[in-house]
Amino acid sequence: MSFENSGGFDRMWADLAPVGRHPGTGGYRRHAWTREDAVLREWFRGEAEQRGLEVVGDGAGNLWAWTADPDADGPGLVLGSHLDSVPDGGAFDGPLGIVSAFAALDGVDRAALRRPVGIACFADEEGARFGVACAGSRLLTGVLDPDRARSLTDDAGTTMAEALTAAGHDPAALGRDDEALRRVGTFLELHVEQGRALDDLGAPVGVAESIWPHGRWRLDLRGRADHAGTTRLADRDDPMLALAAVVLEARSAAARHDALATVGKVRVEPNGVNAIPSAVTAWLDARGPAEDAVRALVADVGSAAGTAPVEESWTPDTRFDPQLRDRLATVLAAPVLPTGAGHDAGILAAAGIPTAMLFVRNPTGVSHSPAEHAEPADCSAGVAALARAIEALA
Amino acid sequence: MSFENSGGFDRMWADLAPVGRHPGTGGYRRHAWTREDAVLREWFRGEAEQRGLEVVGDGAGNLWAWTADPDADGPGLVLGSHLDSVPDGGAFDGPLGIVSAFAALDGVDRAALRRPVGIACFADEEGARFGVACAGSRLLTGVLDPDRARSLTDDAGTTMAEALTAAGHDPAALGRDDEALRRVGTFLELHVEQGRALDDLGAPVGVAESIWPHGRWRLDLRGRADHAGTTRLADRDDPMLALAAVVLEARSAAARHDALATVGKVRVEPNGVNAIPSAVTAWLDARGPAEDAVRALVADVGSAAGTAPVEESWTPDTRFDPQLRDRLATVLAAPVLPTGAGHDAGILAAAGIPTAMLFVRNPTGVSHSPAEHAEPADCSAGVAALARAIEALA
Repeated sequence: MSFENSGGFDRMWADLAPVGRHPGTGGYRRHAWTREDAVLREWFRGEAEQRGLEVVGDGAGNLWAWTADPDADGPGLVLGSHLDSVPDGGAFDGPLGIVSAFAALDGVDRAALRRPVGIACFADEEGARFGVACAGSRLLTGVLDPDRARSLTDDAGTTMAEALTAAGHDPAALGRDDEALRRVGTFLELHVEQGRALDDLGAPVGVAESIWPHGRWRLDLRGRADHAGTTRLADRDDPMLALAAVVLEARSAAARHDALATVGKVRVEPNGVNAIPSAVTAWLDARGPAEDAVRALVADVGSAAGTAPVEESWTPDTRFDPQLRDRLATVLAAPVLPTGAGHDAGILAAAGIPTAMLFVRNPTGVSHSPAEHAEPADCSAGVAALARAIEALA
Repeated sequence: MSFENSGGFDRMWADLAPVGRHPGTGGYRRHAWTREDAVLREWFRGEAEQRGLEVVGDGAGNLWAWTADPDADGPGLVLGSHLDSVPDGGAFDGPLGIVSAFAALDGVDRAALRRPVGIACFADEEGARFGVACAGSRLLTGVLDPDRARSLTDDAGTTMAEALTAAGHDPAALGRDDEALRRVGTFLELHVEQGRALDDLGAPVGVAESIWPHGRWRLDLRGRADHAGTTRLADRDDPMLALAAVVLEARSAAARHDALATVGKVRVEPNGVNAIPSAVTAWLDARGPAEDAVRALVADVGSAAGTAPVEESWTPDTRFDPQLRDRLATVLAAPVLPTGAGHDAGILAAAGIPTAMLFVRNPTGVSHSPAEHAEPADCSAGVAALARAIEALA
């Protein structure tokens, strides 16, 4: 990737490239409160310090780098995104928003700023380790209960409280942070698009209209462990058959309800070649433009599973601030589009903070994959758009 | 469990009970060349030494405890089974054969033995860690190539060679061991039944007729990783749908071909809630009375998967020695029955060693599960049957 006048974008991108990259898949494994996460957070602090920004934490583990004191001169304009990834994720989802924010700040005359500008690094956006997406912004705004957060476990049985402690954070400090929230006058998150709407429109940058209602459900499919070689078909209670029904119904119900549904994570117990499973756990991700349709889809999958889906998270339809959206669309001459992906920006918008999002074109639409990509010229356009947004809003 | 005149069966059973037992599931996790496995092998050595038996190894990691020198006075009669388990297996599958062999030997007059009696502890019978069942007996008889065995990997990426080294064994020594095989004049394995045939017949002990042809196949289902929230249904290449097709076809093809088929192990990549998987790997276990039918079933599943199943192991129809089988059935007044489960006895029979198996009634038929069970009285009958077999054959 190569930029002119891009405020160190290339160097920052190169610094991040190796962190948490799996040599086999080429994908990123940057999960919350791991060693890789600590390296990324340290990188964020270093970039902030190089620019003379003051870094402060909050009661949710997020980091904020400020050009000036937001308590005295704020509230401020905050840019930013997250640095963590899904398992084997791409390089852009998250980091593009933070690297572009630093690069944009480098391109503006800070002496001319009318209010403080902050860059946020949200913790645990993907929820890849503990199962709750946007955990950092949900804790910050109080929609995720800190007791529940502390007791969430990863696949190895480690609780979030234990992981925080291991990472040098006090789990007792988790919770809604009104002081940190008061500093945020406006939040603007730049993100790689996770679809092909901008490519269809021929535009390098777009402005978000809304985030579809979306959620995660767990399906506990129970059966009876038995020997694969000796148990008659008629005597079996095999939960793998229920999994097959769930997967097929998720697809057909999504088509029927004009929504999206995915079974992307599965756990089989005991997961032995010659053992009929005792249990299969499947996770359903469902989203769509209409909340009723998403709810109906989930109910249909529950019927196919023969068990009620357990809701692990739910985010209602989120509309971004209409005035801010229209102003950015005008200033940037950018199209406005909806998205099915959840973001920290959606959590802040739902908490009443004037919030907007910019998307950078993704030529294939592929995301949550090592193949995720954005062209250098489009990334440059994103940095330029953020710089114009800073000038317009701060 | 309580026995009279059972030669220490109760004590041995109690000694083994805690080893590798998972407190949550109640099932056993005794996998090859782990710490648990080392404890079990040490237990075997201790029981042998208490009885004045000499323990020798072989070129495949199996242990043999002999009453006398089989090189000078052999070949001998060998009893035994294995101590390892499937993930969350039961207490009986394997250990019952070894504990019963020690108990039976305690009940006979060793001075009256006409030839050496050995008790074998086969290594890695379940193949739970490295994917190849009966690895110890397959290596011993040369049907598993030692180079292939050394390079097999577990889920953590550890090779069998590394695991052997860590357990204090020389992986270079793996291979067919003619010296060890020459010592085995007759092999007799007692095993808990993994079905309900004896229960249906009202018999505590049975004699095996044959082992069905059986094998394991891997299905590599490939797709394209994508974001679950933004990728249109029509744009998806989701391998979870192929998994559903495989699971359903395995069941219906098994019914159609009068065979058994199970998908008990699945691996999803990257296994994230909001990521369409890039790949799903499924393992198919297929067995039945007729080889052609099993082959046809596997081909049907391959058609449903859209990819050719990769054969990881295959064991043809195995007939036990007819003379030995009939003699045991007569001496023990026990019924003769076939089985769908593979055993080390099947590998030895296929290698030309006169071999037989005894089954002990399993009232539910459940096996490869913490719920696996045999009644104490039936276990006693098994020990008594083994003792009579020693008297008849040695």
